[in-house]
Amino acid sequence: MKHTISVLVENKVGVLSHAAGLFSSRGFNIDSLAVGETHDPTISRMTIVVDADERILEQIMKQLRKLIDVIKVQDLTGEDFIDRELVLVKVDAKPQNRSQIMQVASTFRARVIDVNPKSLTVEVTGDKAKINAILELLREFGIKDIVRTGRIAMSRGSK
Amino acid sequence: MKHTISVLVENKVGVLSHAAGLFSSRGFNIDSLAVGETHDPTISRMTIVVDADERILEQIMKQLRKLIDVIKVQDLTGEDFIDRELVLVKVDAKPQNRSQIMQVASTFRARVIDVNPKSLTVEVTGDKAKINAILELLREFGIKDIVRTGRIAMSRGSK
Repeated sequence: MKHTISVLVENKVGVLSHAAGLFSSRGFNIDSLAVGETHDPTISRMTIVVDADERILEQIMKQLRKLIDVIKVQDLTGEDFIDRELVLVKVDAKPQNRSQIMQVASTFRARVIDVNPKSLTVEVTGDKAKINAILELLREFGIKDIVRTGRIAMSRGSK
Repeated sequence: MKHTISVLVENKVGVLSHAAGLFSSRGFNIDSLAVGETHDPTISRMTIVVDADERILEQIMKQLRKLIDVIKVQDLTGEDFIDRELVLVKVDAKPQNRSQIMQVASTFRARVIDVNPKSLTVEVTGDKAKINAILELLREFGIKDIVRTGRIAMSRGSK
């Protein structure tokens, strides 16, 4: 089962590779990982999506909590949270396909951010289902390149 | 100077912590890191933003290229590329502030994705300058939480 783990860490050298190493030493591959500053620039948040057995994941989370630069570890799975990902997609776009691709983009509230004679680049944000749906439609035109941020998540409500 | 490094890797256990470890063993802190699948699910792309001395960065990139699961390493700095980041911001929002916050959001083409009696959550994408500008404006209302994906980048044109 896929789990979304949110980890607050001190923004220090080595924390990231330590944390990632905990997963890989157990043989877990990380599906996606996004790391960025919080509103306090000395603190970063890692959002990790991993396909993991619950019991072993529990152990890894315990070990994460023991790392000196780790502040908070939370498994968001099952909680009420908003998740989003940003994806840039460069689509093969001959002039005659362009308006069709733009129509797909607008249906998904995606934005065209670059156009040239041979391709068109689209920026789209959404949860997993939305991202999969637009990628499936764009694949028909031919995808030249995809860059994804990996998923980030935030709890709903005022917590 | 900040560098944006794009690394294509085999989607295998351990690559991520190896690559991150190369930076931390040299004492470099990673500003942001985003990892996601490409259109080939066996291949992932890491986008790393790091503040690094050019000469030492060149060495790290050489070492990255030697890792068995690393396919391609590119320093996008100075190239013609599009960079974007996705940020979720939960803003302190009393009912009387709500319309003001929504106005800021709409100016930046940001989207309100959650509202409750005490807060409002905004989703915004953009380059560094745009993200900094909206965060500065939202800070006046009081920011409760920020989650950032870290920067991703894609070359312009049809390459």
